[in-house]
Amino acid sequence: MNYCPNCAAPMRQELPPGDNRLRHVCASCGYIHYDNPRLVVGSLPIWQDRVLLCRRAIEPAYGKWTLPAGFMENDESTAQAALRETTEEACAHIALEGPYTLISIPQINQVHLIYRARLLDVDFSPGEETLETRLFTEPEIPWDDIAFRSVALTLQHYFADRAGNQYSLHESSLSVGDRDSRKPR
Amino acid sequence: MNYCPNCAAPMRQELPPGDNRLRHVCASCGYIHYDNPRLVVGSLPIWQDRVLLCRRAIEPAYGKWTLPAGFMENDESTAQAALRETTEEACAHIALEGPYTLISIPQINQVHLIYRARLLDVDFSPGEETLETRLFTEPEIPWDDIAFRSVALTLQHYFADRAGNQYSLHESSLSVGDRDSRKPR
Repeated sequence: MNYCPNCAAPMRQELPPGDNRLRHVCASCGYIHYDNPRLVVGSLPIWQDRVLLCRRAIEPAYGKWTLPAGFMENDESTAQAALRETTEEACAHIALEGPYTLISIPQINQVHLIYRARLLDVDFSPGEETLETRLFTEPEIPWDDIAFRSVALTLQHYFADRAGNQYSLHESSLSVGDRDSRKPR
Repeated sequence: MNYCPNCAAPMRQELPPGDNRLRHVCASCGYIHYDNPRLVVGSLPIWQDRVLLCRRAIEPAYGKWTLPAGFMENDESTAQAALRETTEEACAHIALEGPYTLISIPQINQVHLIYRARLLDVDFSPGEETLETRLFTEPEIPWDDIAFRSVALTLQHYFADRAGNQYSLHESSLSVGDRDSRKPR
């Protein structure tokens, strides 16, 4: 951040009064810029014994498989964001069954929230950012071609919970070894 | 957002290619500004049959009672944010017991995440943004002087769950009637 979005004067790093972190502050108009983590929200759509995955048509992780998810937007709830992303990426009709994984990734300032969901029909198809949508049984999951670690972790939790027929929220924190190709959009 | 934080040229509202929302876009360097909801993270610290509340020393809701919570920062997990805010606002030592309420407030682009927590001792005291810290039994809760609706809702869930000795994540969405004094910091 070089210039003030309010008045175009140069910004500098400064500790605002009462704060304990350096922020970008405008020397001219006093505007303080706060940069905070973003929520990536999506769903884990289930049909009978199968999970709906989407093959990505965009970078990062082009061609890899993921759950429908994306950045939460202003003016919506987390549940609305999960429904919207599932519509946009997989044109799928779902009923949400509650938050299922909450995964912080501090190195890229993201929090991933995935809802467990019930597919209402099999009338799904690829959205603009998706090459292919497909249902997978557990043995069919393409583990080597999963786009993001949070998605793999969510799938692992799901199959473990399903084996015991008991589902609960799983919260964790992931560190990223490589930052190149693992940043979800 | 009037000027580009990258090059100081005027920004304009535009639909970027492949996007379905108006964004602030720089006509000169092409920088696109994404504005997303913020996470407010905190804890519900319990000592025996009592809840720890903090009386706010800052606006909004100066003088009202709240749970220790605040904006999640970059480079931390949600759990770390809950611990940090509890230390900063109440100098309290807690052990987290998992995410407890997840409350979207679309009108102010916030998501509030409160962890249920166990107070490890009663050696707490007001932090810089707090006038007073105190333990409350259920009948003592100052319902008319609770700072934010998400805090009142979290307390209501807690006392209801405690009566049945069964705790689970509660997810909901709140709308705000008045936007003046109910925005948590």
